[in-house]
Amino acid sequence: MAEEKKLTPVSELGEFGLINHIKKQVTLQNKSSELGIGDDAAIIKNEGHTVLTTDLLVEGVHFDLMYSPLKHIGYKAVVVNLSDVYAMNLHPEQITFSMALSSKYTVEAIDELYDGILTACRYYGVDLIGGDTTSSLKGMVISVTALGYGDISRITRRDTASVGDYICVSGDLGAAYLGLQILEREKQVYLENPNILPALDEHQYLIQRQLKPEARKDVINTLEKLEVLPTAMIDISDGLSSDLLHICKASGVGCNIYEEDIPVHDDAVKQALEFNMSPITCALNGGEDYELLFTVGKDDFHKIDGIPGLKVIGEIASEENGCKFEARGGERFDLIAQGWNALLSK
Amino acid sequence: MAEEKKLTPVSELGEFGLINHIKKQVTLQNKSSELGIGDDAAIIKNEGHTVLTTDLLVEGVHFDLMYSPLKHIGYKAVVVNLSDVYAMNLHPEQITFSMALSSKYTVEAIDELYDGILTACRYYGVDLIGGDTTSSLKGMVISVTALGYGDISRITRRDTASVGDYICVSGDLGAAYLGLQILEREKQVYLENPNILPALDEHQYLIQRQLKPEARKDVINTLEKLEVLPTAMIDISDGLSSDLLHICKASGVGCNIYEEDIPVHDDAVKQALEFNMSPITCALNGGEDYELLFTVGKDDFHKIDGIPGLKVIGEIASEENGCKFEARGGERFDLIAQGWNALLSK
Repeated sequence: MAEEKKLTPVSELGEFGLINHIKKQVTLQNKSSELGIGDDAAIIKNEGHTVLTTDLLVEGVHFDLMYSPLKHIGYKAVVVNLSDVYAMNLHPEQITFSMALSSKYTVEAIDELYDGILTACRYYGVDLIGGDTTSSLKGMVISVTALGYGDISRITRRDTASVGDYICVSGDLGAAYLGLQILEREKQVYLENPNILPALDEHQYLIQRQLKPEARKDVINTLEKLEVLPTAMIDISDGLSSDLLHICKASGVGCNIYEEDIPVHDDAVKQALEFNMSPITCALNGGEDYELLFTVGKDDFHKIDGIPGLKVIGEIASEENGCKFEARGGERFDLIAQGWNALLSK
Repeated sequence: MAEEKKLTPVSELGEFGLINHIKKQVTLQNKSSELGIGDDAAIIKNEGHTVLTTDLLVEGVHFDLMYSPLKHIGYKAVVVNLSDVYAMNLHPEQITFSMALSSKYTVEAIDELYDGILTACRYYGVDLIGGDTTSSLKGMVISVTALGYGDISRITRRDTASVGDYICVSGDLGAAYLGLQILEREKQVYLENPNILPALDEHQYLIQRQLKPEARKDVINTLEKLEVLPTAMIDISDGLSSDLLHICKASGVGCNIYEEDIPVHDDAVKQALEFNMSPITCALNGGEDYELLFTVGKDDFHKIDGIPGLKVIGEIASEENGCKFEARGGERFDLIAQGWNALLSK
């Protein structure tokens, strides 16, 4: 029999005790991190422009504790924010992490959460410099802010794509969405009969893409090595359709993308078909891939073409052309944003 | 009869519609605000070091919609963050504002909230440059981050007070806590008998200190004019005792403060006595005053002495002295942090 672990209520530490408990686990790595946790504010010494992004994640809306280990929740909460900094073509250097917790959370649970946060910090070379801890009446709410610095000439916005640019995407799409569908199915099976163990082993890739996504730091490094400065960039959080439409709308252009060029992992194709879904629909609308979607000038095509893990999927067209998706058979459809929309889904 | 206002569910706008609706109301004022709402991240062009602070505010824990108008909640959520930047002796220039809302909130309610946010932004000369909007399963959660910039030599931390420094405080203390007690009392009266109208008119000062506190931008300006650079500074959010102990602990020093010198407003004294509470206890432990508590070197005493709205309340002593409060009768007590502690109170 497993030994039962002693659990410590947060009230035993108190707010300031908890902050100290967290602070002890943090070592600042970046020279831009002048002062971390413990004062009214953190102090940063940066060079160049600052980019700053923030996300709010709510238990029951963005994550489900039934199938998400706390360590993964902490890791993912950091990663989705870092992804936004990479999408500006910069390397994140600091995060703040705030949480509101109900009384059901113990110090041990918080340690598991911070294990994930600090693992992500180490992996991506980011410092945790502050945050806020408070109580909630129900469930957990997490707020993360991420910062990066760099020369303004290197920063890639979403409103600067031009007609004739090529549209590129990293990795593969749709897998995180299918991972979520598997987890939701197994949750239902479990709720109906707790004696049936979830069948997750054969779906490792899809589930990992959902529970422990990575931000594409490596793609930013590759682009720099290739001497490619994207003309526009965004990370795919809402889905390829939705996020490509963001670029097009902000830049005042249209686009054409081609089904045959959109990268979908074999496991995702197989699983979509098992669910009686179209793999390409999952790739277009699934969301939460945290891949990078970017445009490059015509002259850069030869630098990108053939690089493993980067795929040219179409080109930027005039605004009059509209935003089009061309299926394998040649039929053309208007791209529609059907991505995940937290406020609409409630 | 009053005409009934048409209420718009948030789902009518959708997440991106809501973001656009908010974005339209925002004009960037500061030259450091390079790019605001609408990309993966905001872009800031700052000079000098950056200070950054963040707070998470939860309905039912930090605010009560029964007596807090949404406009005041938005205003206060901004102000409490700006207060932290002023406590570093800098002027805030940007904020981000994130919110998770349950489906009970309409577009009109969100407009009221943003009316408060943007009123605070205009008053303090701060730009709203980003945030996140999402749904919650229950109630409202707000996350605000504030940023300011300046030369490192001007930034005042809490760990730099020295033995012999004078301890100063702005404004008066305890009023916000007493305002909260009045609001809680009237809420109970109302819950027991909804026909009895709350008796709030005679308590305007105390209630305003609770519902619509201000950050002490003016004190930062006064200190600059007086050519006083505090040796340490903190804002009083948890209560004078608790926050002075933060300075002492971080700086490795003790202190002596004197009851007769601690500023308490006449209305606060009167109300405390009516509640059978000690006015000085409210001033020491009440919290949420958002006044500035700072230390100055001995040579600066003559610059501070006699300035209206600034009060010298004691001096920094050796660590061995401990942190002491001397009552009017001459009796000395150890200062104890009894401030508001969200995690302990649950």
